[in-house]
Amino acid sequence: MPLTKLKEHFNEINKLKNIRALLNWDQQTYMPIESNRIRSEQIALIQGLIHEKLISNKTKRLLEHSNKVNNLTLVDLAFIREARREYKIAIKVPNRLMRRMAKAASLGQQAWEKSKINNDFHAFKPYLKKIMEIKREHAKKLNIGPSLYDSLIELYEPGTSSNWLTNIFNKLKMDILEILHKLKSSTEPPDESILRKYYPLHKQINFISEVLQKIGFDYKIGRLDKSMHPFTSNISSMDTRITTNLKDNYLPSGIFGALHEFGHAIYDMNFMREIKDTILADGSSFGFHESQSQMWEYIIGHGKFFWDYWYPTLKNYFPKNLAEYPEEQFYRSINRVRPSLIRVDADEITFNLHIILRFEIEKKIINDNYPVSELPELWNEKMEELLGIIPPNDSKGILQDVHWSEGIFGYFPSYILGNLYAAQIYLNGLKKNPQINDEIKQGQFANLSSYLKDNVYRYGKIYRSEDLITKITGESLNPAYFIKYLRDKYSQIYNVKL
Amino acid sequence: MPLTKLKEHFNEINKLKNIRALLNWDQQTYMPIESNRIRSEQIALIQGLIHEKLISNKTKRLLEHSNKVNNLTLVDLAFIREARREYKIAIKVPNRLMRRMAKAASLGQQAWEKSKINNDFHAFKPYLKKIMEIKREHAKKLNIGPSLYDSLIELYEPGTSSNWLTNIFNKLKMDILEILHKLKSSTEPPDESILRKYYPLHKQINFISEVLQKIGFDYKIGRLDKSMHPFTSNISSMDTRITTNLKDNYLPSGIFGALHEFGHAIYDMNFMREIKDTILADGSSFGFHESQSQMWEYIIGHGKFFWDYWYPTLKNYFPKNLAEYPEEQFYRSINRVRPSLIRVDADEITFNLHIILRFEIEKKIINDNYPVSELPELWNEKMEELLGIIPPNDSKGILQDVHWSEGIFGYFPSYILGNLYAAQIYLNGLKKNPQINDEIKQGQFANLSSYLKDNVYRYGKIYRSEDLITKITGESLNPAYFIKYLRDKYSQIYNVKL
Repeated sequence: MPLTKLKEHFNEINKLKNIRALLNWDQQTYMPIESNRIRSEQIALIQGLIHEKLISNKTKRLLEHSNKVNNLTLVDLAFIREARREYKIAIKVPNRLMRRMAKAASLGQQAWEKSKINNDFHAFKPYLKKIMEIKREHAKKLNIGPSLYDSLIELYEPGTSSNWLTNIFNKLKMDILEILHKLKSSTEPPDESILRKYYPLHKQINFISEVLQKIGFDYKIGRLDKSMHPFTSNISSMDTRITTNLKDNYLPSGIFGALHEFGHAIYDMNFMREIKDTILADGSSFGFHESQSQMWEYIIGHGKFFWDYWYPTLKNYFPKNLAEYPEEQFYRSINRVRPSLIRVDADEITFNLHIILRFEIEKKIINDNYPVSELPELWNEKMEELLGIIPPNDSKGILQDVHWSEGIFGYFPSYILGNLYAAQIYLNGLKKNPQINDEIKQGQFANLSSYLKDNVYRYGKIYRSEDLITKITGESLNPAYFIKYLRDKYSQIYNVKL
Repeated sequence: MPLTKLKEHFNEINKLKNIRALLNWDQQTYMPIESNRIRSEQIALIQGLIHEKLISNKTKRLLEHSNKVNNLTLVDLAFIREARREYKIAIKVPNRLMRRMAKAASLGQQAWEKSKINNDFHAFKPYLKKIMEIKREHAKKLNIGPSLYDSLIELYEPGTSSNWLTNIFNKLKMDILEILHKLKSSTEPPDESILRKYYPLHKQINFISEVLQKIGFDYKIGRLDKSMHPFTSNISSMDTRITTNLKDNYLPSGIFGALHEFGHAIYDMNFMREIKDTILADGSSFGFHESQSQMWEYIIGHGKFFWDYWYPTLKNYFPKNLAEYPEEQFYRSINRVRPSLIRVDADEITFNLHIILRFEIEKKIINDNYPVSELPELWNEKMEELLGIIPPNDSKGILQDVHWSEGIFGYFPSYILGNLYAAQIYLNGLKKNPQINDEIKQGQFANLSSYLKDNVYRYGKIYRSEDLITKITGESLNPAYFIKYLRDKYSQIYNVKL
């Protein structure tokens, strides 16, 4: 009886997580509107059961036993590592603190919604203060640091330090600001007005379904639905669902939301058989998972080769809007770069500055206990420094994102890591399979898919991100690839030397 | 601290049942086809957690404590009664037996599907034999009966004996056979061919949605979806979902499936506040729940007054088929009576004979250990005796229903009890509110709804069926009402004296 019992135990925990995912998916797609409160209670119940199982004596006993087992495979070792990690994180944080956090987040989110609508940061302050206190306490209990903030980052990017991130982000910031400065000098910036015409939803969904089918989404083990915010749900190895947010007056929203979630889904659908439906059936880290969605949304989905194949089809769906509009123009429209106020509407380049802003503020909040009342000012200063614009009000400034009101700190860096991993992995794939872009031009994805399946998807959480990126590309994370990718792409689109 | 802890504990168990309901609903509506096996595992996991909580020492301790609490309300007493009942049933049956049953049912169902397709009862025999053995063992462990079969009936109709059912069913059988005999002499039987024309599904669903809205289905706390077999899911007090099975070549399927499930749903949506989301939030018994669906499907939905209002609307949806077809004819079409082979396609009258047949066979299987190999012959004999027809093969005979292959014995009687309760409750309502039928004629349901809400729905499981029917109608269950209802209705439709 080597690891069988340990695996069964954690597979059961994993099943409960899948059930939680279904409760959440349903809440955001088909659930009747009045049942929100009680659905939250149902999710909390499953959450509690997961926690209970995780911190049980049984877990402790099985983990102790695993120390004595010999002849372990790579997968076994990874299994033990992740099981131990989940256990350690769970027992470090007392149940009482978890419940206080859940309550503060629930109240915080309500208060945030109201404050955002009323543009009233003052009303949100006491709630945010409470959440910040609890998160600092949370970080202290975790005690993984060197700094408190490191402990929170660890939840999303195991083994990643905030110092390392700071170095990477500082360099990135310089490069991006330089690129933006040069793009400003372009005499022919793209115009995106064509994307804001009327695009009937049923036609959009048909086009998207056709694309997904062709690029490898398997409807026998997946679904596509609509929701307010796009997301991916991993409900089992045979059940991965994506949603997208369709707008009839803004074409990119539905298409690129779907491509982004497709990137997550195709990852989840292709773990190696041995780790399917186990705790290893997940992305190597949040950033690594994000790399796959960003790759499909931006590098592939916003790429010229992709639209060489798909633009004629898109024109057939929307002849009134697009028949007279050349592909080159369309390609430039969807890749317009412009500093703007709202992160979720930002382009591929300025998006990173929005993240760096949040990263810098989060560090101050968690490490330095930065005073809540001074946060809006700090936000606006950084907006001016990084994006050159000052929010006209807090709703469009510090109140724009939901994360902090939900108690999520340390997650934002994963978004940038996603971009960096994506470019490095894609450019490496291109080096190994130079025909990839030509195939995409023909609507073919065989070599790209094989490359990603064989090198990324199949391993799930077996390798930590730093090991996996090295295994795939032969070197550790190197932001130069992302910057190179941006320079190549946007110098062509803006016709300026970058 | 009177019953608070006991209630919290069982409310948690109830929440897990609701979660199980969502897993099941999703499986039958939106789940990708390949995920069947793993979904069954997820349901089994929740099932196991429910059982674990139910038989825990905590339950025992809380129930013992409840003995010592004074000043209990009616709801408290019912709560304790039901909690104790669930506990007693759960601890009587060893976990090992439950797992054996689950496995036998899973294998049995696969074997049944195949046998039904191949018309091969012989291949199904060993599986059915196994299931019958386990169910007899199950009944022995429960040990509630005077007879073994009584113990199984108890699971669905608490406090009901098989002797009492036998007496009621024998009388019913005589009455129905007499009615059928007289209907045969009719010189003008209805013709249902109009119902078998082409009726596009999207128009059907629009018509059904319009009807549901008008008769009181609240989409803020409910949904309507499509599925292979119609069903109702109670996912919380704020979330009751129904499905129907639409056929484009048979109009009644979608409409009456939806009305049937609406009857279940409107019951689940209207429990009194105090018992919502508790273990008392369910029908008084399965038969009582069924009475409300049968009432809406048949007494109301197949009634003349209903179509006086709705037929013009239906004609607007399907002018090509129905414009020239008089309402009176349509009403007669949907109420055609004819002995036939398949229970689920049977009419309001002969349906009861199908149930009586199964009841009589189940008694022999469970009480007398009737030999499996002789079951098809027994089935065919009873078909001839009750319905006057002999199945041409076992697929259309003993293999037609899924229940036995799933290990469900003792449930069929609830279907007839539903009809009996329904007629008695409806006719009592008519006596108290003589304007009900006239209101239905006007598309109004205010008085009928109030009557049902105030007298039936709100009480959930607070009263046992026998007490509730007496409370509502002033007398215990009396099958004469159902017979009277049938005679009145069908003598008019068939123009014969019944």
